[in-house]
Amino acid sequence: MRVALDAASGDLGPEVCVDGALRASAETGEEVALVGPKAVLEGILSARSLDGARITVVDAPDVIGMNEHPAKAVRQKPRSSVVVACEMVSRGEADAVVSPGNTGATMAASLLKIQRIKGIDRPAIAIPMPTVSGVSLLLDGGANAESRPQHLLQFALMGAIYYSSLTGVENPTVGLLSVGEEPEKGNDLTIEAHKLLLSSGLNFIGNVEGRDIPFGKANVIVCDGFVGNVVLKFAEGMGRALFDMIREEIGRSLILKLGGALARPAFVNVKRRMDDREYGGAPLLGVNKVTMIAHGSSDSKAIYNAVKAAIRTKQYGVTEQIQAAVQDYAQRTSGV
Amino acid sequence: MRVALDAASGDLGPEVCVDGALRASAETGEEVALVGPKAVLEGILSARSLDGARITVVDAPDVIGMNEHPAKAVRQKPRSSVVVACEMVSRGEADAVVSPGNTGATMAASLLKIQRIKGIDRPAIAIPMPTVSGVSLLLDGGANAESRPQHLLQFALMGAIYYSSLTGVENPTVGLLSVGEEPEKGNDLTIEAHKLLLSSGLNFIGNVEGRDIPFGKANVIVCDGFVGNVVLKFAEGMGRALFDMIREEIGRSLILKLGGALARPAFVNVKRRMDDREYGGAPLLGVNKVTMIAHGSSDSKAIYNAVKAAIRTKQYGVTEQIQAAVQDYAQRTSGV
Repeated sequence: MRVALDAASGDLGPEVCVDGALRASAETGEEVALVGPKAVLEGILSARSLDGARITVVDAPDVIGMNEHPAKAVRQKPRSSVVVACEMVSRGEADAVVSPGNTGATMAASLLKIQRIKGIDRPAIAIPMPTVSGVSLLLDGGANAESRPQHLLQFALMGAIYYSSLTGVENPTVGLLSVGEEPEKGNDLTIEAHKLLLSSGLNFIGNVEGRDIPFGKANVIVCDGFVGNVVLKFAEGMGRALFDMIREEIGRSLILKLGGALARPAFVNVKRRMDDREYGGAPLLGVNKVTMIAHGSSDSKAIYNAVKAAIRTKQYGVTEQIQAAVQDYAQRTSGV
Repeated sequence: MRVALDAASGDLGPEVCVDGALRASAETGEEVALVGPKAVLEGILSARSLDGARITVVDAPDVIGMNEHPAKAVRQKPRSSVVVACEMVSRGEADAVVSPGNTGATMAASLLKIQRIKGIDRPAIAIPMPTVSGVSLLLDGGANAESRPQHLLQFALMGAIYYSSLTGVENPTVGLLSVGEEPEKGNDLTIEAHKLLLSSGLNFIGNVEGRDIPFGKANVIVCDGFVGNVVLKFAEGMGRALFDMIREEIGRSLILKLGGALARPAFVNVKRRMDDREYGGAPLLGVNKVTMIAHGSSDSKAIYNAVKAAIRTKQYGVTEQIQAAVQDYAQRTSGV
C-alpha cells in the first residue's frame, strides 16, 4: 500500500510531515509518498535516518494556502501538493491521500479527482469526538452546509462502517442529533431523517441531544454539516477555555500552585483523553478511495496518526464496505 | 413591581422556589407572588421568616409536568401554575413571570396570554453563556426549530438590548454564528442574515465560529434555535464531562488526591465562573411583558437569581426598548 501525503500544506511546515511519515511507515511497513516541493522535502529527508521507513518523494511545486478559495485554487493550481496527491490516487499510484492543508481544497480535489461513491449524494467529514468513555464519531463535520434527510441516512451508513474500523465495535449505535429525545422534536430535517433511520437496518437509538455527546451516548452521531462544524469547533474552544481558566485560577496562590503541580499528571491524562490527535484526523467518507483530513495545526504526532488512520481505513476496506452497503440499501428499498 | 413566580413546576419542588423568592424580595423590596397549590405554599411559608420580603400566594391547583405536550397542556390545564402566572401578567396583576417548569409550556402560555411584541415574528430564548472573560448572550436557545434571516436580525436587536440590561455594556458587539469568518461561509440562512445584520445599525462584527463562543468574541451571538439549543446543551454536557474526568483522574493516587485537595479552591472558582445560575435564567425575548425561563433543576439560588433577573429586566425597560427598536427599524427600512 502507498499513502500520498500532502507534505507542503500544513501550518507547521513540511518537517512535521516528514517526521510523521517516517514514523508511520517504519511502524506499519507501508510506503508513504511525500508530495511537495522536491528539493525541500529531499533536503529534510537527507538529515533524517530512514530506520526501515519506505519513503518516496513526488514533486509538486505549488501550495494552496489556508485562505484561498478551495474550488478556484484547485482549478488554478494543478501542480499544488494536494491536487498532485489526489491525482496519484486517481491514477492508482496511491491508495489514500492525507492532507493537513485547506480542508475545502482537500475536499474539492478529492471530489474532482477521486470522485464520489455511486449512490452517495454528499460525502461527509467524520469527526472522532473524545468522550468520557472513549470516542464517538460525529458527521457531517462540515463538508456540506445544507443537508436533506437522505443525506443524514447516508452519513449514518458510512459512519457506522468507519466507526467499526476505528474501534472494532460491530453494529455501533447511531444517534440523530436533535433538540429533544422524542422523534417529533427537532426541525424538518431531523424529523424526516428520524423516520428514514428507523427503517435503515442500522442500530439506531433515536435522537440524542447536545449534552449526550460528551458522554458517548451513541457511537455515531449524525447531523447536518453546519451543526456538526459548530459543535466540533465549540468543543475545541471550550476545552481550551476551561484549561485556560484552571491555569489562571491555580496561579493565584502558592498553595494552589503546589496543589496544581502535585495533581499535574491527572490534568495531563484528561488532556490526553480529550486529544483528538489520538484518532488521526477525519476521513472524508463517500469518496471512491481514502481521503484523510488532518488538522491544519497538525504536529508530527498528528500526522503520524493520520497516516496510520489512512492505512487502517484502507486495510479495513471502509470504502468497499460503504460501496456494498449503499448497493444493499438501494436494493432493499427498491423492493428488488 | 410584582413578579409572578410559578412555584410548583420545578424539578426540586416548591421549597426552593419559596426560599429563592423570599431572598430576592427581601433584597430588592419588590413583591413576589408565589403561584401554585395554596395550602402547600402557605404551609412552607408558615415555617419561614419573611425578613422584610413581600410575598403573596396565588392559588393554582394544577401543574404541567416536564414531559407533557406544551400547547396541549396549556389548553387543557387553565388552572396550572404557569398558566395562572401568565394570566396575572396579562391582566396587569404582575409585571413579569418566572418559571422553572416545562420550557415549552412556559413559552406556549406566554405567547397565548402575554403575546408577541408587534413587529417581532418569533420570540427567542436568550441564553447567558459564561466565557473566559465574562458572559455572552446566545440566542435563539431553542424557542424556534426553524428560522428565517429576518428572525436572526430580530434576535440580534432584542439580544443587544437585553445584553445591555444584563451587563451595562452599551452598544454591545453582535456576531453571527457560522462555519467560517468570511460573509459567504455558512448556509443559506446565515449568508442572507449576514447581509441584513450589516445594514442593521447594530455593532455587527461579522461571523463568529463555534470556537469563538467560550472566548467571548462577541457579546451577543445569534443563530437559529436548533443550533443554539444543541450548543447550549453541549456546553452543559461538556462542562460536566470534563469535571467528571478530572475527578476520576485525581482519584487515582494519594498524591493526586492531595494535589486536588490543595487546588480545590481553584476548581471551585472555575465552576463558579462557568455557572449559568449566576445569570438568573433565560428570558423569552419578544413577548409584551417579561418572561424569565429558569432551568428545571433550579435550586433556591437559581430561583433567587431568576427573580432578580426578571426585576432587572423590567426596571431596565427591556420590553419597551425592544418595542421602540422594532418600530425604529421598521421606519428606517421602509424609508419613512
